[in-house]
Amino acid sequence: MILPHYAAKYQTNLLDSVIPFWVRHSVDWREGGYFTCLDRDGAVYDPRKYVWLQGRQIWMFSRLYNQVERRQDWLDIATNGMNFLLGHARDAEGRYYFRLARDGRPSFFQRKPYAAVFAVMALAEYARTGAGEQYRDAAVSLFWQVIEWIRQPALLGRDALPGQPSFQSLADSIVIAKMALEIEDIAGDPRLGQLMHNCLDEALLHHDPANGILLESRGGGEEARLYPEGRLFNPGHSVEAAWLLWLLAERIGRSEQLPRIQSILEGSLAMGWDEEFGGLYYFMDIERRPLLQLEASMKLWWPQAEALFATVLAHSRTADARWLTWLERIDEYAFRCFDDPGHGEWFGYRDRQGNLTHTLKGNHYKGCFHVPRALLFSWKTLSEAGENVRRDA
Amino acid sequence: MILPHYAAKYQTNLLDSVIPFWVRHSVDWREGGYFTCLDRDGAVYDPRKYVWLQGRQIWMFSRLYNQVERRQDWLDIATNGMNFLLGHARDAEGRYYFRLARDGRPSFFQRKPYAAVFAVMALAEYARTGAGEQYRDAAVSLFWQVIEWIRQPALLGRDALPGQPSFQSLADSIVIAKMALEIEDIAGDPRLGQLMHNCLDEALLHHDPANGILLESRGGGEEARLYPEGRLFNPGHSVEAAWLLWLLAERIGRSEQLPRIQSILEGSLAMGWDEEFGGLYYFMDIERRPLLQLEASMKLWWPQAEALFATVLAHSRTADARWLTWLERIDEYAFRCFDDPGHGEWFGYRDRQGNLTHTLKGNHYKGCFHVPRALLFSWKTLSEAGENVRRDA
Repeated sequence: MILPHYAAKYQTNLLDSVIPFWVRHSVDWREGGYFTCLDRDGAVYDPRKYVWLQGRQIWMFSRLYNQVERRQDWLDIATNGMNFLLGHARDAEGRYYFRLARDGRPSFFQRKPYAAVFAVMALAEYARTGAGEQYRDAAVSLFWQVIEWIRQPALLGRDALPGQPSFQSLADSIVIAKMALEIEDIAGDPRLGQLMHNCLDEALLHHDPANGILLESRGGGEEARLYPEGRLFNPGHSVEAAWLLWLLAERIGRSEQLPRIQSILEGSLAMGWDEEFGGLYYFMDIERRPLLQLEASMKLWWPQAEALFATVLAHSRTADARWLTWLERIDEYAFRCFDDPGHGEWFGYRDRQGNLTHTLKGNHYKGCFHVPRALLFSWKTLSEAGENVRRDA
Repeated sequence: MILPHYAAKYQTNLLDSVIPFWVRHSVDWREGGYFTCLDRDGAVYDPRKYVWLQGRQIWMFSRLYNQVERRQDWLDIATNGMNFLLGHARDAEGRYYFRLARDGRPSFFQRKPYAAVFAVMALAEYARTGAGEQYRDAAVSLFWQVIEWIRQPALLGRDALPGQPSFQSLADSIVIAKMALEIEDIAGDPRLGQLMHNCLDEALLHHDPANGILLESRGGGEEARLYPEGRLFNPGHSVEAAWLLWLLAERIGRSEQLPRIQSILEGSLAMGWDEEFGGLYYFMDIERRPLLQLEASMKLWWPQAEALFATVLAHSRTADARWLTWLERIDEYAFRCFDDPGHGEWFGYRDRQGNLTHTLKGNHYKGCFHVPRALLFSWKTLSEAGENVRRDA
């Protein structure tokens, strides 16, 4: 039986390697919040606090507390982050900064809603630890605020300019799906159901049937393919979107979309995988024209982590052998290239050929999130599937 | 005689390969301005107009017209860019956009002064074609405006936040030096001389004697080395700064600084050069700690182009054999890795090991600038040095 092997492997990697790394090295008990710029051995190489990653780590430790074990040390770590986030991360208008000084003073504002997206997830999951309904209410009200920011980027200082193609970004649908799945049970708002249906429909408008993937941008009319954004394929993002939309479609009873979502997952893996050196690319141009991103051909940890859980989910739901083939391939590549058993947590960055380009375990975008989320979700999904098999037997 | 060989090589590469590429492929005679997102063969893969590169190409074609040959087609290309720049690139407050639609409508505003820096250079050099003193006056007045924007970033929408370390950026000194060298003869303002002295002094405050280089950031006090910015070394930038400061020191009679500038050039080449695979790295951390830039270990065309001219300049001024050794090394690497005789112009991006990662010849930062500037300056400097040798003989 190969699946129990994977379940045990991901559980062990999560609880014996990944989470201990963040417990040992990331928590700033003195000033609050989390360090995320951590070298291979956990040494801090930038003491500032990156807000996306504060929210993500609060969410992760709250989720572990809620779903794995009610360990006080995990809850204390979540609380340490939450107090810091609520104490420092917002400006006078409630917008979230991107970066804070170690002590919490604001350091950089990014004209994007993502720092707040992860705060919504953090508040919602932290509320479930029993912390109090003020966190639940804050999650819901910030959720609706983020929806406004996504609809009106000028509120974050990014004016719509008349010469910009009118693209809609896949990221908008994906973060709405991500937040909605987290707050659906606590929102108590009938508008949310309709929003989730719209979100699924809008995300699927990114489907490019010719390539079987989700494109990063839609709209822009007939001239869309003139622009790099209009041709942009981000394999890890398309794969992450596939599993999120799968869960979303299940949640809102839209199973008629599952075959299409399954085909998107398969298409994204097939097109995004580097047949020569292995791994999912970071960015691709569907017409194989030049990319503006210098790091396009690099192999990052998170697309592989997303693909791990996406194939686990697809196999658990369909029992189709092709997903096991993909899982074996991705698992072999991800653990060979990114796992670091000596020090814990995964590396983040290799070049196309597989040479390690950075020794770091965390930075301003990599924190306690993609790896433990993929491991936790995969472990739990495989375990549930195993129990179902045992029940059926 | 090796030096006449290099002079002829650079002249030929400039006039038979690089400039013809941009003449053939970049000029948008229909809507005005220049395409710069050009693939290997010149195919346009993004028709938008990137404003840094509009100014740079106007400057380059004006300079060719002024210093190489008064060819009407070169002047027409400069005029095409200048009309587009002045017609479309500014907002109502005179700030320069980063990107425009093909037809000139604004598409993206970057909260930085660099688009305007290259407009200053463009206006000043274009004025010298005989185009009229309104361009000279516009260059001088925009120059002083850019100085204000550098001193008060909040004018460009980037508020100073209390938690950000108080770093001064090498880029600020470098762009002031760059502009000042271009407008000094036309400014007619006694403040400019003092500004040039201050600029030299401030740039040299970035000197890190332990490593013999210029650091990207200074200030930040004793804790500066806690931050990635405080440890950041950009070899190509440090090398570019060295030749700019060399010319600046000559221009304002500060020859007492030349030994130090020479040692900075030598230190930057020594530390920045990849002894294993050749070429100057893009970014380095002086304590060898992790870098936030994913593309840090890549080899870009422009640091090699800057190093080419810097070593030509140093050899022409000192006749020291060590500069010829460096020149041979850089020339061999740059032409082997980046020159593309079949289609013209240089490639832009290789990974550390030397694999080509992008086939493009231009994008939103690479245009008609670093390569032809380095070739023109190197050719002219070698020719003048040759004439001096012949006169002395």
